[in-house]
Amino acid sequence: MKIKPYELTATEAAAHMAAGRLSSAQLVQSCLDRIAETDGTIKAWAHLDTEAAMAQAVACDTHRQAGLATGPLHGIPVGLKDIIDTRDMPTQRGTPIFAGRQPEEDARVVEMLREAGAVIMGKTVTTELAFMHPSETRNPMNPEHSPGGSSSGSAAAVAAGHVPLAVGTQTNGSVIRPASFCGTFGLKPTRGTIPRTGVLQTSKSLDQLGTFARTLEDAALLADAIAGYDQRDCESFAHPRPNMAAGTRATPPVEPDLVWFDLPFNDRLSEAAREGFDGVMEVLGPRVSRMDPAEQLSDLVTVQARIHEYEIVQHQGHVFDAHWDQISETLKPILTRARNISQTEYEDAVAVKASAQSFFDDFFTEYDAILAPAAAGEAPRFGDSTGDPIFCTLWTLAGLPAVTLPLLVGETALPIGVQLIGPAHKDDRLLRTAAWVQRHIAAAAA
Amino acid sequence: MKIKPYELTATEAAAHMAAGRLSSAQLVQSCLDRIAETDGTIKAWAHLDTEAAMAQAVACDTHRQAGLATGPLHGIPVGLKDIIDTRDMPTQRGTPIFAGRQPEEDARVVEMLREAGAVIMGKTVTTELAFMHPSETRNPMNPEHSPGGSSSGSAAAVAAGHVPLAVGTQTNGSVIRPASFCGTFGLKPTRGTIPRTGVLQTSKSLDQLGTFARTLEDAALLADAIAGYDQRDCESFAHPRPNMAAGTRATPPVEPDLVWFDLPFNDRLSEAAREGFDGVMEVLGPRVSRMDPAEQLSDLVTVQARIHEYEIVQHQGHVFDAHWDQISETLKPILTRARNISQTEYEDAVAVKASAQSFFDDFFTEYDAILAPAAAGEAPRFGDSTGDPIFCTLWTLAGLPAVTLPLLVGETALPIGVQLIGPAHKDDRLLRTAAWVQRHIAAAAA
Repeated sequence: MKIKPYELTATEAAAHMAAGRLSSAQLVQSCLDRIAETDGTIKAWAHLDTEAAMAQAVACDTHRQAGLATGPLHGIPVGLKDIIDTRDMPTQRGTPIFAGRQPEEDARVVEMLREAGAVIMGKTVTTELAFMHPSETRNPMNPEHSPGGSSSGSAAAVAAGHVPLAVGTQTNGSVIRPASFCGTFGLKPTRGTIPRTGVLQTSKSLDQLGTFARTLEDAALLADAIAGYDQRDCESFAHPRPNMAAGTRATPPVEPDLVWFDLPFNDRLSEAAREGFDGVMEVLGPRVSRMDPAEQLSDLVTVQARIHEYEIVQHQGHVFDAHWDQISETLKPILTRARNISQTEYEDAVAVKASAQSFFDDFFTEYDAILAPAAAGEAPRFGDSTGDPIFCTLWTLAGLPAVTLPLLVGETALPIGVQLIGPAHKDDRLLRTAAWVQRHIAAAAA
Repeated sequence: MKIKPYELTATEAAAHMAAGRLSSAQLVQSCLDRIAETDGTIKAWAHLDTEAAMAQAVACDTHRQAGLATGPLHGIPVGLKDIIDTRDMPTQRGTPIFAGRQPEEDARVVEMLREAGAVIMGKTVTTELAFMHPSETRNPMNPEHSPGGSSSGSAAAVAAGHVPLAVGTQTNGSVIRPASFCGTFGLKPTRGTIPRTGVLQTSKSLDQLGTFARTLEDAALLADAIAGYDQRDCESFAHPRPNMAAGTRATPPVEPDLVWFDLPFNDRLSEAAREGFDGVMEVLGPRVSRMDPAEQLSDLVTVQARIHEYEIVQHQGHVFDAHWDQISETLKPILTRARNISQTEYEDAVAVKASAQSFFDDFFTEYDAILAPAAAGEAPRFGDSTGDPIFCTLWTLAGLPAVTLPLLVGETALPIGVQLIGPAHKDDRLLRTAAWVQRHIAAAAA
């Protein structure tokens, strides 16, 4: 049985292209065919211009044939969440308020993708303003279910074989959760690793970019290509970034030490998720320590909400004021509540966030990674909600790198992700640990 | 005899640091000692804050010791021509007009250097507004001579062992010429390779950045670290850049084909330079074709001047108007002449420049590189001028990558550079050819 180009991972496709066995035009055409075939149901794309995508692919092929330099993503199609500005495609942010909005500049990550040789395939559906009101996108694993949010289209497009790679954002759980629901890998590097310039700002303290792919190495390959320092981003840091793809290929010198926190909200886990994690811990055996965390840890959920809500009003309040009638009924009550958060409450929350970061800096001197659910269970039914982000909240707040591996299965055979969280700025070590966990669990299942 | 850290190349120092045999603090201290010892005479530095440099070095060491990611220039001190903005050091552009000027943002290349782990050592002396009025900097090979310009301090600092690496700019011959005079390697990649955002604009069409180092590989290492796409730079291109350092380590599959143009202005070459190039061509034998170029080629010198002068008035005319009494007597007549260039003359010049680029695109299908002088001969006496840039003009105008190798010696034992110019966007191939030429000439001399 012949494999179709769209089924290849980015790493495989890049190797085939370097060897002259595949052109970018063939790959992009195969992806476009796949989209044409399935997106009527899935609705992952907010903007797709097939001619523009093919033109980029042909340019990549011409460039390669001329003996010119190729980039790490040369000729590989990438989907972009529709809150990431593109100078040649509309960026409509999942709301009628910004219908038809055409940015004049590329977001910094788009510049970096072009420099890496990527084909910017199109814009993937986001929930309204990257918040919680569900989009029309369906879960490719079962269209009766939600793909999660807010990076709904990015997760669905990768899961459906529309593109091998997509970029999303996470302010609470918007990369890890949809990746879990759609059965892809999801990677959210350390806060400040990937620049946010040109991306809709919903929370300057919490917004982070992340990647979706069908292998761990691919998720890291994309994250490496868009990692970099940008002084225009207040969280961006001016020092070297680890090579994440190399991390996925490395072997730990000794078996890693993991920790599982018995958090109060673990009672939200579905039966299948609970059983799945029991199984994971059985396989990993003494490598996982179970820990009853200090009570304050779960209080951080409130802290995240306070910062997120206060800041979205700070950044986008003028938009909400001018277009209140175009705001969803899901978002309105949140915004109303948000306007009542006092500056003191906000500042207190920011201080707690800082102390959480310090706590984890110390914590990881003893552990390689935290093992945690990526979500409460499999994807909720379509239309209900985009799912509960609480299993991501603490780690996003603390700015820690996190990755989800699609290793478990839920009640109706939909995927559930195993999340691993590592120390800040050691994303390569987290990915090395994640690859070890994946191998270890695969070996036990075999 | 023990080698002092300041004598190491960047590549050597990086290897010693990775192996734990050298700290950045030791390297930077050694460089600072060397500066303290020699800069009283050489005057390469416009701004140097020894404490700030040491603080960066210590931070690099701490970062490495913590097991965090290191960059390609981790802990390596780099000098920056004083027209490149730095948010933490003044950028005074070689003129009293901008004395004490403190930018609020880093130039894009400075961001990239910080991300690469470099220590920003300080700002190197530039001629007035990167034009031709000589600075106070002396040539480290012989302080009675000029280091060339306009990147006077960058060339001198590298030649004197103050830093292994420095960044400069070239609008006509301001990287290649001072490198030739000071006996360093100089590299000016293809136009648009290195972003200019945050660098004094003297000619949007011609300004380019380049690097100085004491080996070819080092010059390429630095150029790789600051190469990248930036949509804010009108000449920056949105596709992958070649790996230049890898180019210096590659071996040509067959011996390269070079060409020497018998240009009318070759009669400006000094006796020693002429003899030197005769020797080079003898060694390279049938690998070099001598060619009598079409007459129009030397007309391009006028075209470069017209664009450069017209654009500097467009970009900086308001500064000249407001500070005419602070402009040098060297620059004033040029500006007066420049104001008389009509828009039509300018547009014609831009059209000729475009056709020169097309000419060279075709030309390089038959040749690997052009062999040319880097300058008319050794450095002129201090105070006379910064030397004649004409041997760089054509290649800068056409945006071609150029490199100079310090292989020849002049009348008073000062260095003369051998320039090689390659096809646009194939900087790696030019560097592969340059390394071959260097090996070939070294073998013949041995």
